Amino acid sequence: MSQQHLIGIDIGGTTVKIAFVTYKGDILHKWEIPTDKEEGAIGIVPDIAASIEEQLIAQSLQSKDFAAIGVGAPGFIDVESGIVHEAVNIGWKNYHLSEKLQEATGFKVWVENDANLAALGENWKGSGDQAQHMLAVTLGTGVGGGIIANGQLLHGSNGTVAEIGHMTVETENPLPCNCGKDGCLETVASASGIAKIATLEIKDGKSTKLSSILDRQGSITARDVFQAASEEDQVAQDVLAYVIDHLGRAVANLAIALNPSKIVIGGGVSKAGDQLLLPLRAAFDRYALTRTSQAVEFEIASLGNDAGVIGAAYLAKRK
Amino acid sequence: MSQQHLIGIDIGGTTVKIAFVTYKGDILHKWEIPTDKEEGAIGIVPDIAASIEEQLIAQSLQSKDFAAIGVGAPGFIDVESGIVHEAVNIGWKNYHLSEKLQEATGFKVWVENDANLAALGENWKGSGDQAQHMLAVTLGTGVGGGIIANGQLLHGSNGTVAEIGHMTVETENPLPCNCGKDGCLETVASASGIAKIATLEIKDGKSTKLSSILDRQGSITARDVFQAASEEDQVAQDVLAYVIDHLGRAVANLAIALNPSKIVIGGGVSKAGDQLLLPLRAAFDRYALTRTSQAVEFEIASLGNDAGVIGAAYLAKRK
Repeated sequence: MSQQHLIGIDIGGTTVKIAFVTYKGDILHKWEIPTDKEEGAIGIVPDIAASIEEQLIAQSLQSKDFAAIGVGAPGFIDVESGIVHEAVNIGWKNYHLSEKLQEATGFKVWVENDANLAALGENWKGSGDQAQHMLAVTLGTGVGGGIIANGQLLHGSNGTVAEIGHMTVETENPLPCNCGKDGCLETVASASGIAKIATLEIKDGKSTKLSSILDRQGSITARDVFQAASEEDQVAQDVLAYVIDHLGRAVANLAIALNPSKIVIGGGVSKAGDQLLLPLRAAFDRYALTRTSQAVEFEIASLGNDAGVIGAAYLAKRK
Repeated sequence: MSQQHLIGIDIGGTTVKIAFVTYKGDILHKWEIPTDKEEGAIGIVPDIAASIEEQLIAQSLQSKDFAAIGVGAPGFIDVESGIVHEAVNIGWKNYHLSEKLQEATGFKVWVENDANLAALGENWKGSGDQAQHMLAVTLGTGVGGGIIANGQLLHGSNGTVAEIGHMTVETENPLPCNCGKDGCLETVASASGIAKIATLEIKDGKSTKLSSILDRQGSITARDVFQAASEEDQVAQDVLAYVIDHLGRAVANLAIALNPSKIVIGGGVSKAGDQLLLPLRAAFDRYALTRTSQAVEFEIASLGNDAGVIGAAYLAKRK
């Protein structure tokens, strides 16, 4: 009998992504269902179970073709027990996800933080290239991450591992962060942070083509800042230089601790590609030890939104 | 037959520390020999072998009572091959330490970086209390560290893991570091960094009782700064507040990435005890996520100079 397949699930605030994944990490079939957050989000697990049942039939597959389920959720997870301590975006608090999902589906279930699973997915089948020591940095609405060290995903002691968006990186002119602290990496290098810094420059009276976008649309995006910078807008270029210097220093400080061979940059901001990656590498090299720099390759994440379900499948495979 | 003992070795720039250690981690016998750095330091391995031979006889022990040797050396180590890529303080470059020591002693030999082994030692038998997730911070002449994550010592990809003394923590008024960069943690929080910052304050004309020590002795030490601060000297207190704020932020940033349950502070500066630890904890809590803080206990390292040989013995035990 060939190796059984795996089911990877990535629970987000808006949708739940689900995939049937082969033992080698290829997606056989993937789909999404809406995240039902009503009444303490108790509908999510039965929705997932019913949806898997449906799709097994639709794909002419059977339960016995699958070994286990891996599932990622946002928030603080106890990976041993499978309990979600707190997932603010979903509404779960001390929710025994692994037990509930196991009861509902009949499969063995393994749970991890969603950002960690995205890092694991990139490591297994994406840009991480199965590096034994890898740092994943996700620059989206917030800034998150995941760490592979000694060939393993790091879990940490109470579910806050790799919360790198909350490293304090700015003490001179810190902006307030959603976490309650000031000057977190997330206030500088997330999509919303970049937009906010540029907006403050405009409101400060700086002359930039971003002003007209702000006037017209009521807000600007990180993408607008990258676009303006590529068109030689000095203010946009200065904002990105500031952002990338701080991001490069934070990532270099992490790399000095972790000594990775791959740093994988994902999230919406990473769509800027080389416009981000080349100056980021230069900033990193300014702050890293020479030998630390020599060990590292930077890559843009390659799996996009599939990273979570593929990482979840790998979690199920490894357990 | 009872479990075999282990031999732990800690090679430093001045002395080589050697210990016979039980399988449970108790030191049966320990001694030191001078580090012979003449002629490319090729005498160290034969010196160690002869010394072990001698001490086995003196202690009425035999080779067969021991399972293996673990050895720590300063510098960049390839733990797989046992090659010391570069150990500047010793004089080795691409030196196959495990092979040479195995040939000279007949024992199986495992090699690691000395700071990493000190962390491992504290984790096994010292203040780390076998925590699965631990950060060791050594504040000595320089600043070093070691990381235990998922219950394992982290190795990194080319021997620079946990070189936390070279995280960039000061960008406003950075001092030059021996590594060639500016503003490294080591320039702020090492014994020499603290002394230098205080000396610059004196030379800047600040009124402090440290001035007379500088006049009398030609230099001041970190210990002088702690002493003066405990006697209400405002300049010394300001220097320590600055140092500890930067150290607390750096350690918080690492803890946000690694989510440890123990942070063990060692090295000469840690002899300040609660005078360091209490404000350090407060600084850490200013910069860490609340949940990250909740997971962590701070401890002063308890094994002193034995941490290296005990960690080395544990390395031999685990392999």
